[in-house]
Amino acid sequence: MDPGAEITVYQEEPEPSISECGLPYLLSGVVEERDDLVARTPEKFAEKGVEVRVRHRVERIDPENKRLCVRSLEDDGTFEDSYDRLIVATGARAVLPPIEGADLDGVFVLRFLADSDAVRRYIAEHSPERAVVVGGGYIGLEVAENLSRLGMEVSLIEAEDRVALAFGPEVSERVEDHVEKKGVRVYTGAEVEELVGDERVQGVRFGGCEIPADLVVLGLGIKPVVELAAEAGMEIGEETGAILVDKHMRTSLHDVWAAGDCVETINLVSGKPAWVPLGDTANQMGRVAGTNAATGEDTLEFPGVLGTGIFKVFDLGVGKTGLSESEAQDASFETISAAIEATDRANYYPGVEKVFLKLIADAATGRLIGAEAAGSGADKLTDICATAVWGKLAYADLVNLDLAYAPPYGPAISPVIQAATVLSGEFDRARRGVRASE
Amino acid sequence: MDPGAEITVYQEEPEPSISECGLPYLLSGVVEERDDLVARTPEKFAEKGVEVRVRHRVERIDPENKRLCVRSLEDDGTFEDSYDRLIVATGARAVLPPIEGADLDGVFVLRFLADSDAVRRYIAEHSPERAVVVGGGYIGLEVAENLSRLGMEVSLIEAEDRVALAFGPEVSERVEDHVEKKGVRVYTGAEVEELVGDERVQGVRFGGCEIPADLVVLGLGIKPVVELAAEAGMEIGEETGAILVDKHMRTSLHDVWAAGDCVETINLVSGKPAWVPLGDTANQMGRVAGTNAATGEDTLEFPGVLGTGIFKVFDLGVGKTGLSESEAQDASFETISAAIEATDRANYYPGVEKVFLKLIADAATGRLIGAEAAGSGADKLTDICATAVWGKLAYADLVNLDLAYAPPYGPAISPVIQAATVLSGEFDRARRGVRASE
Repeated sequence: MDPGAEITVYQEEPEPSISECGLPYLLSGVVEERDDLVARTPEKFAEKGVEVRVRHRVERIDPENKRLCVRSLEDDGTFEDSYDRLIVATGARAVLPPIEGADLDGVFVLRFLADSDAVRRYIAEHSPERAVVVGGGYIGLEVAENLSRLGMEVSLIEAEDRVALAFGPEVSERVEDHVEKKGVRVYTGAEVEELVGDERVQGVRFGGCEIPADLVVLGLGIKPVVELAAEAGMEIGEETGAILVDKHMRTSLHDVWAAGDCVETINLVSGKPAWVPLGDTANQMGRVAGTNAATGEDTLEFPGVLGTGIFKVFDLGVGKTGLSESEAQDASFETISAAIEATDRANYYPGVEKVFLKLIADAATGRLIGAEAAGSGADKLTDICATAVWGKLAYADLVNLDLAYAPPYGPAISPVIQAATVLSGEFDRARRGVRASE
Repeated sequence: MDPGAEITVYQEEPEPSISECGLPYLLSGVVEERDDLVARTPEKFAEKGVEVRVRHRVERIDPENKRLCVRSLEDDGTFEDSYDRLIVATGARAVLPPIEGADLDGVFVLRFLADSDAVRRYIAEHSPERAVVVGGGYIGLEVAENLSRLGMEVSLIEAEDRVALAFGPEVSERVEDHVEKKGVRVYTGAEVEELVGDERVQGVRFGGCEIPADLVVLGLGIKPVVELAAEAGMEIGEETGAILVDKHMRTSLHDVWAAGDCVETINLVSGKPAWVPLGDTANQMGRVAGTNAATGEDTLEFPGVLGTGIFKVFDLGVGKTGLSESEAQDASFETISAAIEATDRANYYPGVEKVFLKLIADAATGRLIGAEAAGSGADKLTDICATAVWGKLAYADLVNLDLAYAPPYGPAISPVIQAATVLSGEFDRARRGVRASE
């Protein structure tokens, strides 16, 4: 935006721009080269006139005087720097639960490239045969898959009564069935009490039983890194614990913007504060914050998110947009939903596979407020629905939606249209129900 | 809708409900069983209380007296029937050009299951080695692929200067390159003058040259079958030649609805009459016409189409929604467009492939009015864009769209968002251009 700007990036980790979403795949070798996950090196940034100083931690922001206190992690020395405009992009860190034994050798989180290096080194050194993954969210599931690919016997432990809690129970059930078919043992409703071992981890204790483990990966979620921002006086969201920004990504401090996993945004469906730490969203926010910081004006807006997300576990794609039924109820929606099993292509076309789709609509307006898909082509269905939610389409729009049909790409009636047609019937039924009781 | 209704279907062809889109794949054996393309047999319809009388041609409609004259093609006898409500779904037939030699043995169109049977029989009997496909639309391309799969040397002849004319030139070029790499010889700007041969076709003459051919398939498009409707007094669209219906699929005659490839609809982007003979659209129209005929009320609406379509030729998926640039210009839009090459997944994820995406926006409003995609995941990108066009989204919406990202399913920034970001830059440039000239 401003080729004359002098731009400095301080960053604690040794790589400035990595694809964290690729880390699980690096464990198994699905992604072969560590460097493939480094999107851009400091040298590449330098070519664009951006100075990236890795292994440097900003320890204090003085917004009054627009100064920073920076520590070099190489020589442990500190120095001061100043700014005209500042962007905070401190990201998120893994949640470490207060579980006894979490500090044993062989217990890992997977957040940065260094974590993945450590797990790989440990695997190379100790050839673990039995792995336990704690946490049934998408990271936990992806890690379970990739450890399983290495030939390990993998158990997945989830404290709640089902995995993939962001989804409805139909999807959770499909995920559990699928990973169990692939050989992963799933324990739900199982709160981990202790990681057992002397120096190295040897087992995991939960619900009165203990299972052996040579390797444990904790996938218990992440939380925004906001200490630096909070100490500098930036307002922090009460519900999310992430930095508050307006739609121009401005923080509460003058000439300070923030973007990425450290900030709070809004869920456009519920209208509620949301903290959605995802790579694509962070990227979009970064573009807005960077542009506005460069111009010094409110040039671009980031309106908020829908809560769209997707993951793959073994051969199952699982995607979501908007609100699940329980999230919708929490946001005071009355919902009407429809769930179908469809196919990913014409039923006579080779390779045809099944896909599950659930649509969730606002009973008052008919508007689509959420969708969940699991199976082949779940990514396409999720994205169609995300665009429909963004465009505020109602079930009646979806019934007539003009999507692309050819036998290799879908059934003649898209699963979205099929599900919308069922939904339409549910609305009719609800209306008749209302009439009958009048 | 009305379980008590007495429903009779008259149909000339021997199968009542076939997937015409699957016919090219039946030629090569990609679809193995002929019966796989029969969606529902008369027996299946009978179970639902629908009497399907195949090999019967309705020869006259008398709308005054609500009577039909029907000819049985089995015994050539005629009889009368009557209706309370009538639905016309006469479909479309292949265009047969006035080319000399089009009646030779070994020259085919591919419209009905019987056509595909005839081609397969001919191939089995005569083992043709050199095939010529006339017409570079999607049917011609699909047929070329499937004949090529049988080991034939295939040439494709197109009268215009490029194939896939519904798309912009960038896509046409990609399609031509791809099929030529797969061994299909493509001749463009080549008007066929004569099919040469004694009894059986032996060659095709065009532009002063002649190429040998043991088999010729004419893929020169289809046209609506409207004679019956026109004779009965139904209004026919001037531009399209298809039956005029309102958005409830009512024709100009009382108690007569029409649906499918025989009717005209509206292109929701251009606002102009459109004739889009596609299986999914026909299906959606049929639901509206059938429901309204059953209730006798204007229960459902079919608002119109976007012009969405997709085809696959060899390994290349090619999809489109809305208007191409030249279609937009014909509809008096001033356009701003952006075209990108992106990937179908994270660039480090195994199997990554390229995809081309072009977005076309209305210069006046910024609204997306068309999109074209070619490559891996073209179906997903087309459907996202179709939903965006349906929802009247502008490029600024697309830049912030919350789509589903995980490494196996796309790059961190969806190609749609990448292209919208480029489009955004084009709009900025256009605005600055305006300012500079003020």
